[in-house]
Amino acid sequence: MAEHTVKAFDEDIDKLRGLIAEMGGRAESALEDAMTALVREDKKLAAQVVAGDARIDELESEVEKLAIQTIALRAPMANDLREVIAALKIVGVVERIGDYAKNIAKRVPLVAVNKRTLEPVSLLPSMAQIAGEMVHDALNAFSARDADLALAVVNRDTVVDDFYNSIFRTLVTFMVENPKTITECAHLLFIAKNIERIGDHATNVAEMVYYAATGQYLPDRERGETTETS
Amino acid sequence: MAEHTVKAFDEDIDKLRGLIAEMGGRAESALEDAMTALVREDKKLAAQVVAGDARIDELESEVEKLAIQTIALRAPMANDLREVIAALKIVGVVERIGDYAKNIAKRVPLVAVNKRTLEPVSLLPSMAQIAGEMVHDALNAFSARDADLALAVVNRDTVVDDFYNSIFRTLVTFMVENPKTITECAHLLFIAKNIERIGDHATNVAEMVYYAATGQYLPDRERGETTETS
Repeated sequence: MAEHTVKAFDEDIDKLRGLIAEMGGRAESALEDAMTALVREDKKLAAQVVAGDARIDELESEVEKLAIQTIALRAPMANDLREVIAALKIVGVVERIGDYAKNIAKRVPLVAVNKRTLEPVSLLPSMAQIAGEMVHDALNAFSARDADLALAVVNRDTVVDDFYNSIFRTLVTFMVENPKTITECAHLLFIAKNIERIGDHATNVAEMVYYAATGQYLPDRERGETTETS
Repeated sequence: MAEHTVKAFDEDIDKLRGLIAEMGGRAESALEDAMTALVREDKKLAAQVVAGDARIDELESEVEKLAIQTIALRAPMANDLREVIAALKIVGVVERIGDYAKNIAKRVPLVAVNKRTLEPVSLLPSMAQIAGEMVHDALNAFSARDADLALAVVNRDTVVDDFYNSIFRTLVTFMVENPKTITECAHLLFIAKNIERIGDHATNVAEMVYYAATGQYLPDRERGETTETS
């Protein structure tokens, strides 16, 4: 590429990274707010999370348009092209993380939780916090091309999976003992599953970052499928 | 592009389409086999579905490599570039459909179904059949750039959603009446959810095909999020 094209390409990539960072920040906040809404039974906050997902989807479209434009105008070579394609894949994953957060928020009005009667709820926020941190770190690893940070994210996924398996068992036991709460508990099961999937997606991003930074694939791991009862 | 490059590009696109058709066929079969395994309690067939997902993942990697190579070597212009990017997005979705089928198969050994006691199972195969047909038609619409067929897929998604909502209610009622079956029913809930997501993903593919063929977005529809109890 001519020098001015290289500069233009670098500017495009910076813009792509900026948009992805904004999307990631919004997805993280959406998860946090959805969990706050769940715990506080705050239907208004839940509705805000649901409405806010449209902006995440818009950002995905912007990234796609910019990525296609960058490829068409700058004709980047091998490594640079790979970086643009990686950005496209990563926004796809971040968009899905946003969807999972929205899905949790949509269930808030369906889980009429009386906190003292629905004790399994108490494990969910800790699980969501770890998954949220994984999303945060995976996107930071992407920004900084930090393979070590990416690896740390991948290794943390088992914690989320352990949480999920524990919550699954707790909820089933709770349902057996309190059949009147079965509908609410079914929604909590799906919420736990959504959080577990967010952890998986953060892991997927981290794996892509690791590969982009080192050229090596991580030792085999079933993609996005690590829970006993997944 | 020079004439020989145009020809080479067309060959690349044909190859991409061929790989995607193969992936789609495998994902469809995986869903069908997973449901057969569920209904017949056939753990061996379920294990085959789980093992077979690796080939779908491999095909995704092949499509990605070929797409990147096509962009790098042929430097396609606007519409052609869009088509390659669409292919990249569609394989991502097909890969996820394969994951959902695998996930259903993984649950087969966990659902020790005595068919006479677990009647909600009987609705699942019909639901899966419709979802499978949607996948089939969405990929045919992609091959044939058929906007009408794509639209028909999108319109069928409400049928799958209605099934899901009905199965959700049936399972919850069943759990309340038969607390001993709660663990199995929880897995059946997730299976129903997986099928519902397959319908959503087929719809997403159909939406992309419709847009690629007509340049118009379909009237607003919440992406991949259409069930009452999603």
